[in-house]
Amino acid sequence: MLLCDIGNTTASFLNDQKFQSMNIEHFLQYEPTEKVYYINVNPNLEEKLRQNSLYINLAPYFNFDTIYKNLGIDRIAACYTIEDGVVVDAGSAITVDIVSNSIHLGGFILPGIENYKKSFINISSRLKCEFNTQISFDAFPQKTADALSYGVFKSIYLLIKDSAYNKKLYFTGGDGQFLANFFDYAIYDKFLIFRGMKKAVCENFKL
Amino acid sequence: MLLCDIGNTTASFLNDQKFQSMNIEHFLQYEPTEKVYYINVNPNLEEKLRQNSLYINLAPYFNFDTIYKNLGIDRIAACYTIEDGVVVDAGSAITVDIVSNSIHLGGFILPGIENYKKSFINISSRLKCEFNTQISFDAFPQKTADALSYGVFKSIYLLIKDSAYNKKLYFTGGDGQFLANFFDYAIYDKFLIFRGMKKAVCENFKL
Repeated sequence: MLLCDIGNTTASFLNDQKFQSMNIEHFLQYEPTEKVYYINVNPNLEEKLRQNSLYINLAPYFNFDTIYKNLGIDRIAACYTIEDGVVVDAGSAITVDIVSNSIHLGGFILPGIENYKKSFINISSRLKCEFNTQISFDAFPQKTADALSYGVFKSIYLLIKDSAYNKKLYFTGGDGQFLANFFDYAIYDKFLIFRGMKKAVCENFKL
Repeated sequence: MLLCDIGNTTASFLNDQKFQSMNIEHFLQYEPTEKVYYINVNPNLEEKLRQNSLYINLAPYFNFDTIYKNLGIDRIAACYTIEDGVVVDAGSAITVDIVSNSIHLGGFILPGIENYKKSFINISSRLKCEFNTQISFDAFPQKTADALSYGVFKSIYLLIKDSAYNKKLYFTGGDGQFLANFFDYAIYDKFLIFRGMKKAVCENFKL
């Protein structure tokens, strides 16, 4: 079963256990030779995907309980195998979704870590710094790089913690592993979205 | 006494009680006719300011106790009249500084609200939304505009609250009034930076 998760900057493939990722420019050249079960949040690619019948849009096949308007299909897929927990997908944006008894209670969005960095560069050349990934939350920062790192990482941390109460935390996405490390009990699952996609395929298609 | 606070996007003047603000392009054309006591964080303007002796750089005249490396002169000025408290300057960036017994304990930085919005637009056209300034922090969002507003405002709120303990909160800057409203006991002072500048002038110049 070939699965493909198409985002704003990259397209990721999972073929059984084999993972592969390409940027969107590359993906525009890609021609499938077998069925590709995909989800896509990139409006620019809808036309390309519609034109080839080997591309099968999984979006209609998720049986997901939510009242959230226009919830991104990547967020639905990430939550789809979680019965109770908070699902954090940390990519170009950080999406946080709360699931209880397999019902989606809502969610929220922050910029992705790389986009915080870009934002600071746009504000002032003086704020162009590499983040300090070892920053301590226990002392107030005493220089710019630490001040930016503390602001970004601790504000993300506090908001996720606030939404979690005693729920399990599931992280995925490029910065998922890094953010998971701020929490004592967090699960990082690189393939969380693919797991949801696989579940939707198994529920709906005879393979 | 004519005071001028020069930032990354605007230059603000206070002449006794009269306040005036202009964008940086305008300020480049401005020629003073009397002494201007200024602070400046905009590297592009240093040359212009040095060339006219009516411009008096206040930066060397702040007697401020901190170990923070290269603390922005606007942040020093905002803290300069505060003995104990947390000082939030919410402009193109949000800076938060903690002062105790007139000693600066450190601080941190977040993007300004408008720059969060720009960041979301850069991530995806689907995240181009006006923020909901009435967003409730008590229920998980159920649509994109609320999800972005909750993410931005609540993460800022929680981080400021976390740093404040029982200290007084002082807000200034373009979004200072808006952010102050999230707190039960917060002081908004549009002229906090000017107050600090005035104190530095009075301590150092015979007028």
